[in-house]
Amino acid sequence: MLTAIIINAVVIFALYFPTLRNNEWLLAIDHAFILFFLIEVIVKLIVLKPKAYFRGNWNRFDFIIVMGSLPVFLEGLFPIPEATGLLILLRLFRLVRLVRFLRFIPNIEHVMTGLGRAIKASVFVLVALVFLNFMLAILTCHFYADIAPEYFGNPLVSIYSIFQLFTLEGWNEIPAAIVQTTDSAFTIGMTRFYFAIVVILGGIFGMSLANAVFI
Amino acid sequence: MLTAIIINAVVIFALYFPTLRNNEWLLAIDHAFILFFLIEVIVKLIVLKPKAYFRGNWNRFDFIIVMGSLPVFLEGLFPIPEATGLLILLRLFRLVRLVRFLRFIPNIEHVMTGLGRAIKASVFVLVALVFLNFMLAILTCHFYADIAPEYFGNPLVSIYSIFQLFTLEGWNEIPAAIVQTTDSAFTIGMTRFYFAIVVILGGIFGMSLANAVFI
Amino acid sequence: MLTAIIINAVVIFALYFPTLRNNEWLLAIDHAFILFFLIEVIVKLIVLKPKAYFRGNWNRFDFIIVMGSLPVFLEGLFPIPEATGLLILLRLFRLVRLVRFLRFIPNIEHVMTGLGRAIKASVFVLVALVFLNFMLAILTCHFYADIAPEYFGNPLVSIYSIFQLFTLEGWNEIPAAIVQTTDSAFTIGMTRFYFAIVVILGGIFGMSLANAVFI
Amino acid sequence: MLTAIIINAVVIFALYFPTLRNNEWLLAIDHAFILFFLIEVIVKLIVLKPKAYFRGNWNRFDFIIVMGSLPVFLEGLFPIPEATGLLILLRLFRLVRLVRFLRFIPNIEHVMTGLGRAIKASVFVLVALVFLNFMLAILTCHFYADIAPEYFGNPLVSIYSIFQLFTLEGWNEIPAAIVQTTDSAFTIGMTRFYFAIVVILGGIFGMSLANAVFI
Ligand code: NA
Ligand code: NA
Repeated sequence: MLTAIIINAVVIFALYFPTLRNNEWLLAIDHAFILFFLIEVIVKLIVLKPKAYFRGNWNRFDFIIVMGSLPVFLEGLFPIPEATGLLILLRLFRLVRLVRFLRFIPNIEHVMTGLGRAIKASVFVLVALVFLNFMLAILTCHFYADIAPEYFGNPLVSIYSIFQLFTLEGWNEIPAAIVQTTDSAFTIGMTRFYFAIVVILGGIFGMSLANAVFI
Repeated sequence: MLTAIIINAVVIFALYFPTLRNNEWLLAIDHAFILFFLIEVIVKLIVLKPKAYFRGNWNRFDFIIVMGSLPVFLEGLFPIPEATGLLILLRLFRLVRLVRFLRFIPNIEHVMTGLGRAIKASVFVLVALVFLNFMLAILTCHFYADIAPEYFGNPLVSIYSIFQLFTLEGWNEIPAAIVQTTDSAFTIGMTRFYFAIVVILGGIFGMSLANAVFI
Repeated sequence: MLTAIIINAVVIFALYFPTLRNNEWLLAIDHAFILFFLIEVIVKLIVLKPKAYFRGNWNRFDFIIVMGSLPVFLEGLFPIPEATGLLILLRLFRLVRLVRFLRFIPNIEHVMTGLGRAIKASVFVLVALVFLNFMLAILTCHFYADIAPEYFGNPLVSIYSIFQLFTLEGWNEIPAAIVQTTDSAFTIGMTRFYFAIVVILGGIFGMSLANAVFI
Repeated sequence: MLTAIIINAVVIFALYFPTLRNNEWLLAIDHAFILFFLIEVIVKLIVLKPKAYFRGNWNRFDFIIVMGSLPVFLEGLFPIPEATGLLILLRLFRLVRLVRFLRFIPNIEHVMTGLGRAIKASVFVLVALVFLNFMLAILTCHFYADIAPEYFGNPLVSIYSIFQLFTLEGWNEIPAAIVQTTDSAFTIGMTRFYFAIVVILGGIFGMSLANAVFI
């Protein structure tokens, strides 16, 4: 099973190379896999009886994916116009099929439970960080909307820029860009101080928040 | 209550879009919220009696915010000159109102206590990092003030540059800029070595310090 | 022994300077070290008897390295054509010799065991991150292959770009580059939102995954 | 005492501004502080008796600093030529005086002990990372010395570049620069793969190593 999914993953991977997008062989293998998975579902349904089959979470997941993959065969019967977006949807469904791969990771249930616990524990932290981001975005928009419209021209752009500051990535370029619009040493100093505080709040304080909850 | 505050947040958010800044409808909703919160305070004051009301920290916080928001109505009565800065202050007070949102985060008291403990635990670390930053800023200013005045021309700029080195963000650009001013392989080597040490002290040693206290 | 290996490391280090690449003295010292290590192996073989000698992991490792280093002496006897790549292989073997250095780190066995445990514990996390990278790479390739071919033109390039996003390094430059190809505010917003989500999934969620397993 | 040291710190800080470098008032205050600290040392020596005084680590540290600061008064008596470097040394000694500030941080001894333990625990990790850096530097120098001499032209430059890769800062610019020198898709792929591995080893594996020891 795992081998089948890995081969399927490789085929889907290959199908995304521009030169292989319409490769007949790869498409044939991909369709063969859908058939294979369809047969697997049918066999399991017969062996386990529908009632028992649908009791398993993974089985239900398999069933939905296989059903969702079937319309791809219609493609062969009559052409689907590109513009409808249906084709893109069907191709995206190929990716969802790969999620079945998860089932074969050893201890996946253990990891999932741990992950669930970690997410539940960090939901407050995430809400707090979103709130901090929201407040700082409006505050920064308030002061810098006219000075740096490309970063803080409206609250939505401002949220993105503050998020960027929180990841620390290129944070120094934002005050550097603002500083170039002015000659006042006081404005330069205040701008640098303000963004250093935002970085400390987002990056360092955010980590402190995380620690406060995790431990 | 939570819904009211979220709607209020959305209205305040929208009011910061340049095209909506003076939108009458949004301003009307915002003023309606102030009235709504004012009535809430009055009702609570009557029901709980002032003595009991002011015993709650959140109530006191609510009261101050509502009182501080009231002057906004004067705006409708007589024009406030833009230049006084009073208008900006009143608009900023809108943001403070959103801090009430915190009250409705589940377990916020638990998070706050955890946060308080984390801050108290990290205060020594922060003092130590500020001290390290201060010392390295003067030391770097001592050696590089004339070579790289845009980064280390005076102790204040130097503190900002060292802070940037501590966040690791663009740290390599600083020695790269200095290195271009010289041809001596020895100076290049020493400069790179010096800033690598600063990065190790600030980024890696700083984390070690944090670990030493946290655990 | 430790001193000998450190001196050998310094000699190998020096041999990589372009001006010292063919320095006769350094090469002579390097060859002397191979002889020295060869004699060490022979002495140990005689003293401990082959059976006992080959029972030790480090001894076996030493033996292979010394055997692999011997062909270097053939160089002196007859010239090896540069093009065969054999010379490069022999020079690379010098580096492998330095791995013997590990043996003399105090508590190395303890560190190795801890490292082994850490790797075993993080193998699920690594598989999950590789899976996440793979899925996001294909998904991003799906949507951005035509818009940003230099980043997401095919699934392989896409994997590299997603890896870069996971390290946070220069992540903001990717949406910035894509944003410049369009004027639609909606596309800009969606692109920024999409890559912010990828960063959160990779950088922040990835760390959460790590925590879920480690603790 | 703490106040005196903070004022002294501010004075030393101010003395590094180009316009205040030779400000007579600041220099006078600075000299007054040296006198003040000298008197403090003398008083303590008389009260505690030299034997008891020199038993305290901080006292010994104070004594050395005050003694080292005294030559500054010779400056007033006869001019010291700039070129001797003695002046620079004396000014640097001002900074060392600020280290006395450490003594007044509450719980400093506790922090110091924790720090000492953290450093001792991480010394293996640091040695391992230095070793990893050294090996990767020579290996990368081996393969890329001719292709990217500005990054890997000799082992020393190579160590610096690998250190930069370990901090993740601008890591992607190095393969990007190398990739531009070639058209071979295979070389591009291998280069990206190689540096991604270096980043994983240095950044992620390095952290794993740290975890293995810390916990
Ligand atoms: Na960065
Ligand atoms: Na970074």
